[in-house]
Amino acid sequence: MILLHHLRIGRSLFTVWQLEELGIEYGLKVYHRHPETFLAPPELKAVHPLGKSPVLEDGDLLLSESSAITTYLLEKFDTENKFSPPREDIANWANFTQWLHYPEGSVFCPLLVKMLLLRSKQPHITLTPYSERETALHLSHIANQLGDNENILGDKFTAADFGMTYVVSLAKRLGLLDSYTSLNDYLERNLARPAFKQAVEKAVE
Amino acid sequence: MILLHHLRIGRSLFTVWQLEELGIEYGLKVYHRHPETFLAPPELKAVHPLGKSPVLEDGDLLLSESSAITTYLLEKFDTENKFSPPREDIANWANFTQWLHYPEGSVFCPLLVKMLLLRSKQPHITLTPYSERETALHLSHIANQLGDNENILGDKFTAADFGMTYVVSLAKRLGLLDSYTSLNDYLERNLARPAFKQAVEKAVE
Repeated sequence: MILLHHLRIGRSLFTVWQLEELGIEYGLKVYHRHPETFLAPPELKAVHPLGKSPVLEDGDLLLSESSAITTYLLEKFDTENKFSPPREDIANWANFTQWLHYPEGSVFCPLLVKMLLLRSKQPHITLTPYSERETALHLSHIANQLGDNENILGDKFTAADFGMTYVVSLAKRLGLLDSYTSLNDYLERNLARPAFKQAVEKAVE
Repeated sequence: MILLHHLRIGRSLFTVWQLEELGIEYGLKVYHRHPETFLAPPELKAVHPLGKSPVLEDGDLLLSESSAITTYLLEKFDTENKFSPPREDIANWANFTQWLHYPEGSVFCPLLVKMLLLRSKQPHITLTPYSERETALHLSHIANQLGDNENILGDKFTAADFGMTYVVSLAKRLGLLDSYTSLNDYLERNLARPAFKQAVEKAVE
């Protein structure tokens, strides 16, 4: 059976959500952050050398990198292409793949820098302008892509919405969504999905 | 024909390298950074709203995100699985996918923060320890994964080596490789590949 190593509070709740959307039977092993440093506990290092989460275990296979986990889950369990375009539709599939990589590949870093700057209450001569410029660029880009659609790739909810919802939720926590009504609405819609609520029930202690 | 929008100096040289390894016919459009800010020129914004590189154009398809570009190139051109395990070999393919996502998804951010800190000559109370802890964690993880092998996934050179070579080359530029002999050797081996040399000849003006 699939076992998800799930660290509270963070990215891996969005992997629990995927498992719920895909209707996969899975187990959860929950870890908690250090109350002061907010770092992952050493027990996660025993699971995976990076000591981070999410980590997915499926038999002998141990997978990290959230978008790689999504890709694997789609390949193994989404055989009817409910959550992504079929690979034969190569232009749409390539576009989907781009939006699957984009949240962690491009958006997460300036958000993380913003979070660390806020936590320290100290600005920095190059990192503050970097995080301001890049978070604004990416939130505008996401809002433009979303347009009046329900989901990031149009009418249909796809696996590209998992990572996107995560980075938009992080932007909200950092107080960056005030001028992005459509992103607020997008977030509310996705967090109201039954599968997300089930994930919260199971994974948030 | 494939057209690669290529910004000097940066990540997209490693996409040129992929095109050379795959033996694809392609065109290059070269852009230069602002000499002082080191930012991309506004002309790239006309190509893609993020104004970054690499951007791959293939007919009507416009793709950003370097690992998504790699995934697309493999799907379309590497039909004999010269550079990745076949998808039917799902455990090896999933592991490959994880290592394909890892450089941009996890390693690039602490390296970028380190670069911006070095450029500013000013440390920061949370970002300096973040970049030091995370760059050390990831370089050790990469060195452990490499072990005594020639390539990141073992004997065989795969597409997972493209992104990995990029982040290792960036780590070297930032002076972080001194205690990682095997990563230095790995970098030298890959940069000596004929396809990389051809990429440099075509793309470095």
